[in-house]
Parts: sequence; C-alpha cells; structure tokens
Amino acid sequence: MGAPPGYRPSAWVHLLHQLPRADFQLRPVPSAFAPQEREYQQALLLVVALAGLGLGLSLIFIAVYLIRFCCCRPPEPPGAKSPPPGGGCVTWNCIAALLVGCAGIGVGFYGNSETSDGVSQLSSALLRANHTLTAIDHLVLEMVERLDEAVRTELTTLEEVLTQRTELVAAARGARRQAETVAQQLQGLAFWRGVPLSPLQVAENVSFVEEYRWLAYVLLLLLELLVCLFTLLGLARQSKWLVIVMTVMSLLVLVLSWGSMGLEAATAVGLSDFCSSPDSYILNLTQEETGLGSDILNYYFLCNQAVSNPFQQRLTLSQRALANIHSQLQGLEREAVPQFPSAQKPVLSLEETLNVTEGSFHQLVALLHCRGLHKDYGSALRGLCEDTLEGLLFLLLFSLLSAGALATVLCSLPRAWALFPPSDDYEDTDDDDPFNPQESKRFVQWQSSI
Amino acid sequence: MGAPPGYRPSAWVHLLHQLPRADFQLRPVPSAFAPQEREYQQALLLVVALAGLGLGLSLIFIAVYLIRFCCCRPPEPPGAKSPPPGGGCVTWNCIAALLVGCAGIGVGFYGNSETSDGVSQLSSALLRANHTLTAIDHLVLEMVERLDEAVRTELTTLEEVLTQRTELVAAARGARRQAETVAQQLQGLAFWRGVPLSPLQVAENVSFVEEYRWLAYVLLLLLELLVCLFTLLGLARQSKWLVIVMTVMSLLVLVLSWGSMGLEAATAVGLSDFCSSPDSYILNLTQEETGLGSDILNYYFLCNQAVSNPFQQRLTLSQRALANIHSQLQGLEREAVPQFPSAQKPVLSLEETLNVTEGSFHQLVALLHCRGLHKDYGSALRGLCEDTLEGLLFLLLFSLLSAGALATVLCSLPRAWALFPPSDDYEDTDDDDPFNPQESKRFVQWQSSI
Repeated sequence: MGAPPGYRPSAWVHLLHQLPRADFQLRPVPSAFAPQEREYQQALLLVVALAGLGLGLSLIFIAVYLIRFCCCRPPEPPGAKSPPPGGGCVTWNCIAALLVGCAGIGVGFYGNSETSDGVSQLSSALLRANHTLTAIDHLVLEMVERLDEAVRTELTTLEEVLTQRTELVAAARGARRQAETVAQQLQGLAFWRGVPLSPLQVAENVSFVEEYRWLAYVLLLLLELLVCLFTLLGLARQSKWLVIVMTVMSLLVLVLSWGSMGLEAATAVGLSDFCSSPDSYILNLTQEETGLGSDILNYYFLCNQAVSNPFQQRLTLSQRALANIHSQLQGLEREAVPQFPSAQKPVLSLEETLNVTEGSFHQLVALLHCRGLHKDYGSALRGLCEDTLEGLLFLLLFSLLSAGALATVLCSLPRAWALFPPSDDYEDTDDDDPFNPQESKRFVQWQSSI
Repeated sequence: MGAPPGYRPSAWVHLLHQLPRADFQLRPVPSAFAPQEREYQQALLLVVALAGLGLGLSLIFIAVYLIRFCCCRPPEPPGAKSPPPGGGCVTWNCIAALLVGCAGIGVGFYGNSETSDGVSQLSSALLRANHTLTAIDHLVLEMVERLDEAVRTELTTLEEVLTQRTELVAAARGARRQAETVAQQLQGLAFWRGVPLSPLQVAENVSFVEEYRWLAYVLLLLLELLVCLFTLLGLARQSKWLVIVMTVMSLLVLVLSWGSMGLEAATAVGLSDFCSSPDSYILNLTQEETGLGSDILNYYFLCNQAVSNPFQQRLTLSQRALANIHSQLQGLEREAVPQFPSAQKPVLSLEETLNVTEGSFHQLVALLHCRGLHKDYGSALRGLCEDTLEGLLFLLLFSLLSAGALATVLCSLPRAWALFPPSDDYEDTDDDDPFNPQESKRFVQWQSSI
C-alpha cells in the first residue's frame, strides 16, 4: 500500500535477456548484468563483432556481385541504342531501396528521439532525487540551528529568570536536555551528508554524453538522407560524377550503419540484462560508492512493507522529545509566568520555535519516507528500460533497414550508371538548368530506357 | 525548498496564448481559459470555422483550376501521339505532392504518438494520485481500528487488573483518553473520504477517449497512406479507374484533413489558454467538484513555503497524544507491573500497538505532505501541456501538409489522367501481370510521354 506502482521489466527486456551469450572462446556466459567481469565484456564485444561480420559479408557479397556483373556481361547487341535487358529493373530496384532507406531514416529519427526522452527522464529523476537529498540536509541543518539558538538564548534567559525556584529551573533544564536530544537525533537523519556520490553530477554526466550521442545520430541520419536524395537526383539527372560520389558516400554510410548497429545491439543486450533485475546491481553499486548502510539503501530501493524505516527509532525519539518539551513549556507557562512576568517572553518565543520545529519535523518525515525517492528511482528505471530500450530497438531497425538499402543501392548504382549515355555529350555547364532542351532530351531518353 | 521543480509554460503555450481571439460578432475575447462561457466557446468555434473556410477556398480553387483546364485547353496538335506541353511537369508535380503527403504522414504518426504519450502521462499521474489518496484513507482507517481495538481490549483489561490502585487506574484512563484523541484527530485527516470525485474514474475516462482519438488518427493516416500509394500505383500503371477512385478518395481525405485541422487548431488554442495558468482553473474546478476547503486545495496545488500545511494542527496534536500515551505506558510499566504481574501482558501489547501506530503515523505524515500529490499534479500538467500540445502541433503540421499535397494531387490527377493512352486498348484481365509484354509497352509509352 505504501509503495507507488513501480517498474516492471517489459517483454522486450525478457526477450533480449533470454538470448544466449558467449565469450570469445564461445563458452556460454550467464546473462546477469556484470560489466566488470571479463566474460561478460567479451560477450558484449562478441555482439559488436557480429555486426562487423555482417559488414564483412555484405562487402564481400557486393564485391562478388559487381565483379560478376563487370566480367560476365553478355556481349553487347549490334543495335547500340537499345538498353540491355533488365536495365529498368535495376533503376527501379535502386529507387525502391532508396525509399526503404528513407523510411528507415524516419524510424531512426523516431528512435533517436525516444532514446533521448528516456535518458532525459533518467536525468530529471536524478535531479529530483538530488533535490530531495539536499532538502533533507538543509532541513536538518536548519532545525538543529534553530534548536541550538533556542537553547543558547531563550532557555538560558529562562533559567536565569527562574533561578530562585529550583523545581522550575529543573523543568527548564529538562526542556534543554530534550532539545539537545532532538538536535542529536536529527543530526543522525542527515544520512546523505558527506556522501561522495552526487546525483546531480551523475545527471550532468549522463546529459553530457547523451547530448553528443543524440547529435552524432542526427548527423548520421542527415548524412544518409542527403545520400538518398542526392543519389535520386543523380539518377534523375544522369549525372555520372554525382552517382560516383554517392556510391562512395553510400559505402561510407554502409560502414557507419553496421558500426552503429553493433553498438546499438551490444547496448540493447547489456541494457536488457541490467533491466531484468536492476535492484541488486544498483544496490551493490550505490553501497560501494556511498558507503551507506544496507538498511537505508534497501529501504529506498525496495520501499515495500517488508522493509522497515531505518529512521523510525530516531524519528520516534525526536517526536517524543518534542512532545515532552511542549508539556514542560506548558507547565512553565502555568506555573512560572504568573510569578515571573519576565519569563513570559522567552516561554512564548520557545513555544513559537517549537511549533515551527514541529512543522519542519513533519516535512522531514515526508522527505525521509521512501515514497518520494523510490518514485524517482522507478521513474529513472522506466526511462532507461522502457523509453531508451525501445528507442535503441528502433535505431537498430533503422540500421538494419539502411544497411539493407545501401547494400542494394551499392549493387544497383554501378549497373544503373552503365546505362547512362556516354559522357562525351555531357556538358557540366548546362547541369544546373533542368529546362534546357538537351537536358530534357537526355531525360526522356533515360526515361524511355528504363 | 519543499516543492520539487514544477511545471513552467513552454514557448508554444505563450505563442498560442497570445494569438487574438474573437467571437461570432468578431469582438475580441480575452484569452483566459473559460470553457463554460459563451464568448470563449464562440472563439474556439471560430477557429474551427476558419478551417472550414480553408476547405471551401481550396475546393473552389481546385474547381476553378480544373474548369479552366477543361474549357481553355489549347487545340490539339495534328500529330496525336506527341504529348501536350507540360504533361511531364504535371505528373512530376503529382509525384512530388504525394511524397510531401507521405512525409506529412510520418509527421502525423509522430504527432499522434506524442499526443498519446502526453495523455498517458496525465492518466498515470491521476492513477498515482488516486493511489496516494486511497492509501491515506486506508491508513487512517487501519490506525483508528487498531487504536479502538487497543482501547476496547488491552486498556479495559488493564483497568480491571489495576482496579485496586486508583492512581494507576487514572493513568490507564489518561492513556485511554489520549488514544481516543488520536483516533478523533486522525479521522479528520482522511480528507478524501466521501468526496464524489475519483481520479481513477477521471483517468479511465481520459484513457477511453484517448484510445478512440488515437485509433481515429491511425485510421486517417493509414487511409491517406493507402491513397498516396494507390495513386502512385495508378499513375505508374496508367490505370484510369484506379486514378478516378483515388481522385474521389483524395477529395474525401482532403475534407477529413481540413476537418481534423480545425479540431486540432481549436484544441491547441484551448489547451494553450489552459496551460498558460492552469492553477486557478483547476483549483476552482476541484473545489466545485469535491467541496473541499480552499486551504487543503491550495496546499496541494501550490505546495510552496507560503502555504502552510492545513493538517499541521491535527498532526501535532496526534503526535503529542501519542507521546503522552508512551510516557503513561512507561509509568505503568515501572509502577504497576512489579505489583500486578498480570498487567505485564496488556502493557507490552499496548507498547507494541503504540510502536506500530507511530510507524504508521510517520507514513501518514509522508502521504499527507504536499510533495507527492504536487509532483503528480506537475507530471500531469507536463504531460498535457508539453507532450500533448507538441503532438497536437505536429498533427496540425500533418494536416497542413496533407491538405496542401492533396489539393495539388487533385489539381494534377485529372491532367495526368488526360495524358493516359485511350482506354479502348486497355484490358483489365492483364492488369495483374507487370511482366506481360503489352503492359511493358504501355509503361514505356507512358514513361516516354512524361
């Protein structure tokens, strides 16, 4: 009842987590997330290597296809103007592949924005957690200072005023002891003070890396979009130099696509392992980084009925001490103020301080409760394991589509290029005017050839 | 310090909020969100009417263009085989417009998913708020029942056991009075009990409406995608009947696009007015629906240092009463248990009950604090005013692109259709085989004609 609805691993996490993993000697590796272990690192590197293998195979396939096309071309028929059979098919293939590539780019933009959304959800959850943790520190500091101030000034004045009546002095001393108890208990509640790990720093680092990752993908997507559009333009204008440049660029983007595919696949696999049971890994990591007790970390990371509040004892003791101060002040107001009118001011001031402290105490109880921080933890996990993972899978789809499309384009472009009219009647100076008659004639010629 | 970083209106909200609004008599209407006022409703309806005007104008433009094309056609040159000038340009125009339409469809899918994300963020925030509110109710009920049970059984037993010593009976009676005070104060904290508004119900209604909105948009997007693809197919295959059917479908989708544009624009304008200062509207609405005091609603909706906790008094009183019960039980344990061994069991059981109640009390303090519910409120607002508004603007862009593209297609299709070869040498039976020689011949004919 206390915990808000939390994070559940999605179907994608389960699916990716169940894929078999192997190290470099192809021995199976358990799929628990352990990035510091050599076998696990090897398993992830093997996923990257698979993409390298894919790149190698597709390059070999393209090379074999093109060599076979160049060397085993059927002898040219005597009528030089008639196009070789299958020429139109090649151009249409190329255009269809470019359209698939453009659809892939759309998927890539969507995936990139999803990934970015997930990471920004993670970093805003970290910022909120940082806000809560610093608020606890500040609140404790403020309360302790207020109590110390009251003990130093009002309670000392009161003791001086009441010095003739020993039982009243004893009551004031009792209140002083209780106030000191509260201050001491409170100081134990500022559990994040002096901890070397700052969620703010982590959030800033995550945002910094994500910014560059996002930018890199946007550049890759724009590069591929430009390649697709200029290749289409080159085909439509029958510009040989443009098609040659775009063939080289396609090769570059093909390599980049396979490279990004390897990185995405390895990240998705690692993320699925992390997301299938994040609690234990995060618990251990936080314990190592912060040195906090496991009772506190369990309380915040699990936040269910089974884990008791580690601050319960201190909170209850502070609460009782505050109530005792209240009853002692009421006693003093009843007994001392009628006899010592000068005691009225410090007693009223102490009651005011006590009211403010009780208000702050309720705020502190709310801040210390696991609900708030656990909600941030759940939100960070959902961002990372739902949005980011989904975005990565879309990026993977983009890489697959663009690798397939570019391989087809690379196979088709040289064949389409061979269909262009000979370049000796081609003038670069007229290239920019789509309405010049020569250009239109060439265009109609090409259209009739496909 | 207490409040987490909240919601800030985005630049889009400011921009849309600053657009002038007018009623049916074109008198300016203030842009504060007031959906129950007639002038404001008229201003939104006028936005919808603007889209209707756009539809009318574009239909008139298309009609004038086509009539001019049909009646003022230049006399056909004697060589019947040569295509009329500008024929290729028309077909390419049509293809370019269809590609713009496809890009618009991509934008539309993105916008639809963003809108859906925003609404699901809103409804999950409502579910979390509902969880918190019911948790407060349950916790109060549980604590009151536990205290009542303790008063009925253990404290009665204790009074019976200690009946010989009046001062001990008085202490037990004091504990009973304090427990009754706590129960009474706690019952005042279950502020949501009996409130007729259920966030769960609101979330379910919102999700229900959103599901149909999402589905309607997906169907519209798929319809437009099919129209684009079949129009391209019709142009490529020179199928007259397909082009005619697609002209009619394009007209239908054009009407739907303008209609959806009107709805999106009106919703975006209304949403920007709501989002520019949501607090006061939501406060008034919630006060009307729930009948809760403005102190409670201000506390949760504003949650800053200026608004004091309306439960502070009750919480402090309960806390002091719990501390008093504790000191009375300790007194009884010290005084009574050595003399009356049978008092030990009820005293220990009461201390156990007190400990559990104090734990629950801290949880209640945390649940009642404004942080949790205010965070949900901020998350709901961010979902509605950032994601949903952004999604609506993307949908607006989709509608604009598709309206422009379809108007161009509707202007171009009949002209492209006029360029097709006469239909008497066209056989429907061969229509499905792209490789039959007649078909290829016709295709090459068409290609050379553009």
